Amino acid sequence: MCQLMGMSANVPTDAIFSFTGLVQRGGGTDIHQDGWGIVFYRGKGIQTFKDPEPSVASDIASLVSSHPIRSETVISHIRQANVGGIGLENTHPFCRELWGRNWTFAHNGQLDAERFVTLPLGQHRPIGTTDSEHAFCWLLKCIADQCSADSKDEIVWDVIHHCAKTLHVMGVSNFLLSDGRFLVAHCSNRLNHITRRAPFGKATLKDVEMRVDFGTETTPKDIVTVIATEPLTTDEEWQAMDAQELLVFSKGEIISRYHTASTPESPTNHGKVIF
Amino acid sequence: MCQLMGMSANVPTDAIFSFTGLVQRGGGTDIHQDGWGIVFYRGKGIQTFKDPEPSVASDIASLVSSHPIRSETVISHIRQANVGGIGLENTHPFCRELWGRNWTFAHNGQLDAERFVTLPLGQHRPIGTTDSEHAFCWLLKCIADQCSADSKDEIVWDVIHHCAKTLHVMGVSNFLLSDGRFLVAHCSNRLNHITRRAPFGKATLKDVEMRVDFGTETTPKDIVTVIATEPLTTDEEWQAMDAQELLVFSKGEIISRYHTASTPESPTNHGKVIF
Repeated sequence: MCQLMGMSANVPTDAIFSFTGLVQRGGGTDIHQDGWGIVFYRGKGIQTFKDPEPSVASDIASLVSSHPIRSETVISHIRQANVGGIGLENTHPFCRELWGRNWTFAHNGQLDAERFVTLPLGQHRPIGTTDSEHAFCWLLKCIADQCSADSKDEIVWDVIHHCAKTLHVMGVSNFLLSDGRFLVAHCSNRLNHITRRAPFGKATLKDVEMRVDFGTETTPKDIVTVIATEPLTTDEEWQAMDAQELLVFSKGEIISRYHTASTPESPTNHGKVIF
Repeated sequence: MCQLMGMSANVPTDAIFSFTGLVQRGGGTDIHQDGWGIVFYRGKGIQTFKDPEPSVASDIASLVSSHPIRSETVISHIRQANVGGIGLENTHPFCRELWGRNWTFAHNGQLDAERFVTLPLGQHRPIGTTDSEHAFCWLLKCIADQCSADSKDEIVWDVIHHCAKTLHVMGVSNFLLSDGRFLVAHCSNRLNHITRRAPFGKATLKDVEMRVDFGTETTPKDIVTVIATEPLTTDEEWQAMDAQELLVFSKGEIISRYHTASTPESPTNHGKVIF
């Protein structure tokens, strides 16, 4: 299994605090030492750092932990290999271009080996051998087949939600997905989030001695959501996502929520609330 | 204009020496200060570092200059913006997946603004606004249309060479292109290369005080070729490529050479020598 971390913010924000906590779990406070990666969206471009080394011992992770990169959308992942050997090609997040946008995907869980390989692929093909990258390429095929660059975002989210239900049936599929404009978080069994906004307080990391006073780092208008497999701080109230809950974030806020506790085969349970 | 640097080696080799020279030209000894990037192939995966900041002042470039990453194929670029603003999405090298392989492209030159936009696109679309990324996406369309994953490499190189001739007619098009198995270098007007093999000597960088004795860093079997817009060292004999020369490197050696001094429209001049 692996651990995920995502961030959505309404102003370019650095993710140093959260990333510093996460990297400790890559060989320090936890066992996810088979590589790590982080993708920062900056405008239409992405800045990517990946390393097949354990994050806790990685020079590149140290740089990312000390070098503020301000971004509105971040996806990060530390890996404990199950399907696919240790190597850069199997290191999340995975990135592909569709419609002239950078799409990024990171997955925590494991899909049934006999079933995930049957997911049909289109123009995007896996480079490595993970179930996760195969699922991502299939997901992009579904989006490309059923939507276009001009489709309303809601149509794209519907397709992603439908795919998430299919993946959930195949195994554990907690994932983060972004096209740089929105950030989708899907929970199979384990994903937490917290939204920080004014009045900002202080927070203490769980995995390493580090405390921050967000009041001194932010303006009153800032809204920043962090999503993580396990809460990264000890003194804040994180929200646990439900099984089969899918949230869409943009600029730090939840802009759409899907919830399906019933079987994914039933189209009548494709319930959606926007708030 | 911009500057290119590439490396092809028969054993995973770090590119610290060459990169250290190159980054000085990004705002230090030269004016290419509108961003930089480097892609290291490691197995089927790639490790990418990009920054829209001048390379000479970049913390990330400092890390790459001091952190040995061993790779058989490297492509790097420092940018002086002409077409497309300064931003990550316009920062070379550009990467796309085709046939489950990572393809990487970096370009030095400028294409005629009215002509490059007429190059038809397929499944790969530009994310930024450079002529270079448009040309790369078109090049991948040509490869995808005329070849398959099972095509012989020679067929793929023929297509790339044909595309290179078309780009040369549209303007200056020095470029490096790789799928991780081979490295193509095309010269419109300025590209140099050097192959280092036993007996190894010493070399001194042109742009910064740094000297290396390759004899102490290598084994007698190592073969390493470096390609650069301008020679990076002062005391070695670099080979200047001819206009419209295209070289294919693999494991440090030239494995195919195309040379067309005549007009690209003439199919009878599509001369090819393999040696």
